[in-house]
Parts: sequence; C-alpha cells; structure tokens
Amino acid sequence: MEKKITLAHGAGGLETSEILERLIFRKIPYRLKRTEKGYGLDILDDGAAILLPDGKYFIVSTDSYTVKPLFFPGGNIGSLAACGSINDILMMGAKPIAMLDNIIVSEGFPIKKLEIIIDSFINILERENIPLINGDFKVLPNDNFDGVILVTTAIGIADKIIIDRELKPGDKIIVTDYIGDHGTVILALQNEIDIDNKLKSDVKPLTNLMLPIFQKFSNHIHAARDPTRGGLAMTLNDWAKDSNTTILIYEEKIPIRKIVSAYTNMLGIDPLHLASEGVAVLGVDDERAEDILNFIKSIGFKNAKIIGKVEDNEKYNGLVILESKIGGLRILEPPTGTLVPRIC
Amino acid sequence: MEKKITLAHGAGGLETSEILERLIFRKIPYRLKRTEKGYGLDILDDGAAILLPDGKYFIVSTDSYTVKPLFFPGGNIGSLAACGSINDILMMGAKPIAMLDNIIVSEGFPIKKLEIIIDSFINILERENIPLINGDFKVLPNDNFDGVILVTTAIGIADKIIIDRELKPGDKIIVTDYIGDHGTVILALQNEIDIDNKLKSDVKPLTNLMLPIFQKFSNHIHAARDPTRGGLAMTLNDWAKDSNTTILIYEEKIPIRKIVSAYTNMLGIDPLHLASEGVAVLGVDDERAEDILNFIKSIGFKNAKIIGKVEDNEKYNGLVILESKIGGLRILEPPTGTLVPRIC
Repeated sequence: MEKKITLAHGAGGLETSEILERLIFRKIPYRLKRTEKGYGLDILDDGAAILLPDGKYFIVSTDSYTVKPLFFPGGNIGSLAACGSINDILMMGAKPIAMLDNIIVSEGFPIKKLEIIIDSFINILERENIPLINGDFKVLPNDNFDGVILVTTAIGIADKIIIDRELKPGDKIIVTDYIGDHGTVILALQNEIDIDNKLKSDVKPLTNLMLPIFQKFSNHIHAARDPTRGGLAMTLNDWAKDSNTTILIYEEKIPIRKIVSAYTNMLGIDPLHLASEGVAVLGVDDERAEDILNFIKSIGFKNAKIIGKVEDNEKYNGLVILESKIGGLRILEPPTGTLVPRIC
Repeated sequence: MEKKITLAHGAGGLETSEILERLIFRKIPYRLKRTEKGYGLDILDDGAAILLPDGKYFIVSTDSYTVKPLFFPGGNIGSLAACGSINDILMMGAKPIAMLDNIIVSEGFPIKKLEIIIDSFINILERENIPLINGDFKVLPNDNFDGVILVTTAIGIADKIIIDRELKPGDKIIVTDYIGDHGTVILALQNEIDIDNKLKSDVKPLTNLMLPIFQKFSNHIHAARDPTRGGLAMTLNDWAKDSNTTILIYEEKIPIRKIVSAYTNMLGIDPLHLASEGVAVLGVDDERAEDILNFIKSIGFKNAKIIGKVEDNEKYNGLVILESKIGGLRILEPPTGTLVPRIC
C-alpha cells in the first residue's frame, strides 16, 4: 500500500525526526549541511550559524506557523510567529536583528481579520525594535485551503553561540517559567473545552530574559532551547541524545500550573509533551546554577526552577530519566503520535 | 460589506502592491524597514541587504511556492523553489551561500511523491553547491489543505549590490532568454490544454549566467531582476516607478517563442504578464550594452536581446512605453486581476 503523510509526521515528536531523516538529512552530504566553519543541519539546533569575518556569527532560523484556531487567549498566529522566531534566535545565544515574513492566506479570508493578525506581528517587531526586511504574500484558492499560514525567518548576531550538544555532565537544567500553557490553551480550544479566562498562552519574546543572562553568565550557559512543539520532553530527549548524556529530572520541581495539570489530566495528555511559547530551558554550569537561577528570578521570572541535572551514565546516556513525585524512576520518552495538530 | 482577500491580491500585480501597502508597508516606520546601513522594505527589490563589518553585504530573500500542478514539464515545485530563491539572490548581485526551507504538506499526501519533490529541491542545491542549513516541516489536516507548499529563504554574499532603483536614463534593457515559458506551461495545464511536449518551464538557476556577468561587468549592471510573478510587465513597471524614469520597449525585440504567442493568444493573456523562472532582465550602461549582450550570448544564452532603453521624459517618468510591432506607442500597464493563480 502506498505510504502517506500522517499528522504525526508533523507533530514534532519521534515521527517528525524519522521522516526528516528519511526525506532530507540522509540525502544531504555533510559538506552541504552547513556553511564553512558554520553550523546547520549538522547540529539540528534552534537555528543555523554562519561565521562572519570578524569572528561573530550570523544566526538564521526559519519556522512555519499553522496554529488553529488563529486567535487564542494571549495572542494570535501573528504574535506567535514573531515571538517564535525571535526566541529561536535568542536560544542560539544571539540578538535578533532582522525578520523576514511569508503570508499565505486563502481567497475569501476577511481583510480586517488578516489586518489584526499582521498588526500583532508588526507590534511585536516594533516593541522589540526588529526591522522587517523582506517577505512574500500568496493567496490560495479556497477550494484548496482555508485560513492563514505564516512563515518567518529571523536573523540574529552572536558573539558566542550556544550549541545544545555541548551540554556537559554535572550541568543543571533550569526551566524559566510554567510549562505547557500555550499547548494546553490550543488543545482546549480544539476540543471545545471552555477555559473560561483562567488560562492564556504564554507566547512572548524572551529578549528581556535571555540578553541579560548572556551578558552576565556568557560562558556558563551550555544549552538553551524554547520547548515549543514536542514540549519539554522533546527538548530534553534531543539534548540527551545530541550530547550523549543522561538527563535526570525531578517531576516535583517542574513548574506546571494547577489548571494545566487539571486540563491535561482530563484530556489524557502529558503536559511535558505540550508546547510553551514563552519559556526557556537552560543547561548551565553546576557551580553557577544557583546564581543564574536567582538572577533569572530577580529580573521577573519568579517561577523559574532548577528541575534536574546532567550525568554521564553509560547505561542511560542518550535518555531522560524522570523521578516521579512519589519517588520512582522512569524513562521519559520523546513524544510520539499526533498529540495536538497545528499547535504552533 | 466585509472586504475579503481575492486571488488578485496574490497575483503579483497592482492589487498585490496595494494590499501590501495597506497591511504592511504603511504600518512600518522607516527605521524598521531595513537594518542599519542596509536595505530592506525601503527598496522592495528581490532581496534585502545587511552590511557586514568588512564592507560586503549579506543578501537574504524569502519566497513562498504554491504552484499548482505540483509537477509540470521541465520541473516541479521542488526545483522551482530552489531556483526561484537562488535567482533572487543572484539578481541582487550576490553569490548564494546557503538555503533554508519550510515544507508544509497535507495529511494523506503520498510520501513517495513528496520524496520526488524534495529530491528535486536537494539536487539543485547539490549541483549549485549550496548548503541547506535550517528548516521546518509541518503537516496540515486534509480537511483544511490539500497539497504541498514550499517556503524557501536563500542567503548570499555580495561585494557590490544591485539596487534596481539605480537604473539610469540612457541605460539599455537586456532580456537574457525567451520570456513567459513557465507561466504558459502552468496556464495551459490549469486550463487542461495539451501542450504535447512542445513547451516546458524554463525553471533553472541562473548562477552560470549572472556570476560571470558580475565578474566582467560589475560596475555596468544597474538593475537586475528575474521576471517571475507579474512577468516582464511588472518588472519594468516597478523599475520605471522606483527609478522615476521612462522605459521604452520595442515589442519586436522581445524574445517570445511562437508556441508561447500561440497559447497566450488562444487564452487571451498577454505573455508580458506571464512568469519566467530562468530569465534575467538587466538594466545596463549604454556604452557597454553591446559588449554585455555579446558576452551573454557567448556563454550560452543565445536568445538574449536588447529590448529597449531608459529615458528621462518628465511626462512619462514612472511609466513603461511599448512600441508595437506595427509602430504605435502605448503605455504598458502593470498586470491587474487574477491572471494565473498559483503560477509559482
């Protein structure tokens, strides 16, 4: 039987890794996975790095936004696209300096609604002082597509880049805020569950979090990622695999809102698999971990927590171990299956 | 009545300019249209330019590819996306050095078919020696979308950039090959007209045309564009407007295949409005125009022609004047209306 693309292939979990390996990564020779002395598909990080003549790096990162519904408590696809691409640049250790956009919209879509989306996108850029320098605009006949897709490419500049595979045994793992808010909101809306203004997406740019951290602790941040599609579980599994370490996480330390626990329980989904859009996961030097945590709290991210540590345990390297609230240990698998379609 | 997006808004003609002005350009302050000492939405050229510390420029250009049908004589959406973004970089005077991709595919799409598309995309990159450094992959439920969209962002590096508004009175206009082949093929397929292997899309990367020209005639190329969506008519109208000159074109000089004339006649469409995907339009110094034309022919582009010239005529500045084959003059308007949906 002819094999077909499934929603799971796009969910950001194991099936996404597999289809990309099959269709893209294995087909491209190593020399064409990165620019000279740069980083690209060889590292599979939040963005790619191109070495500049003065020793700094240009960072570029591209993402497609297909979230449905287009509007949700806390934001819309426009703010999501701006924040998502800004945060990807930040997680590479870089300062965002420019944005490019693609707007794909269906014939018959209300112009006023599109204007609200684009205004939200532009407002984030204005607040963050990031120029919009290039773009494209396409309309699809509505017999074929209904809605809006945004595709953004952000560019940043870094003195020193953060490559997550440099996570080291001994490092502590910090999460800077409650996780899973965005994913839970979208999941609830898609399931027509009334969240009754009790929860909104955490979508926000993390510039005022990350730039101060880089300035103060530049050499002590070994890994940084925003746990979007695939959630915290995917981020940590990627890190354990890419750095060939064992990551040990304490469930009771993970900051999760009660309402997120309640909804995910009700829907039978692990909140560790759900996207956050305004949270950073950091792998930091053991000896500076408390300083970094206190600094993060002092600049307004009061829910930040050290949630675990990195070990070199031959038997478990490449895996994430979760110590549950009642004490047992289990392997935290990367997400599989469909989870939430069109979460970001 | 609520105003809605129409196919014409996405056709790359007048309505596209108007909706972008309304939704984007007028909303962004000048300082956020470009990076410092760079160029971006302030010039509306094929790409944006970011000044590097050594005086060179990074060029970035992003485009969405939504062509339907996905496969056509001469190529498919994969080769189209690779060539389109490579050519946009070249038209800015730059050498392509990296590519980023977004693949958006519908649930249920045959994996084998997607593989052929991605292989075509990768094959162009391999032949051109351009690394693929970052990307995204999303799947949409098939109740909402059916098919494949590719969005590519290309990066290049230029010693000297070509900004089309620097077209000058006296310059000659060169077209490097037959125009309208791609648009005619797509148009015929969409109208279920049998083109019977007599015509194929001209889609190809123009690296082996443009890099030698830059090397030999660097200071004499004032404007360069690949006349894709909106065709030669849109390119020339953009140039006349942006450089505030009058462009005079001789219809009899424009290289058009007989079969393209026949099909466009039959379908009642002006071939000057139809996309080419392997052609460059150049604005060049009068005194070197013949040398440049001969050089272009000598490197294999035998159908190249000087098709017109640039004048400073206060009454007609901002407009394109076409001298028809029988001698009369008329204003060549930019395309309006829908023309061909999903041509690229």
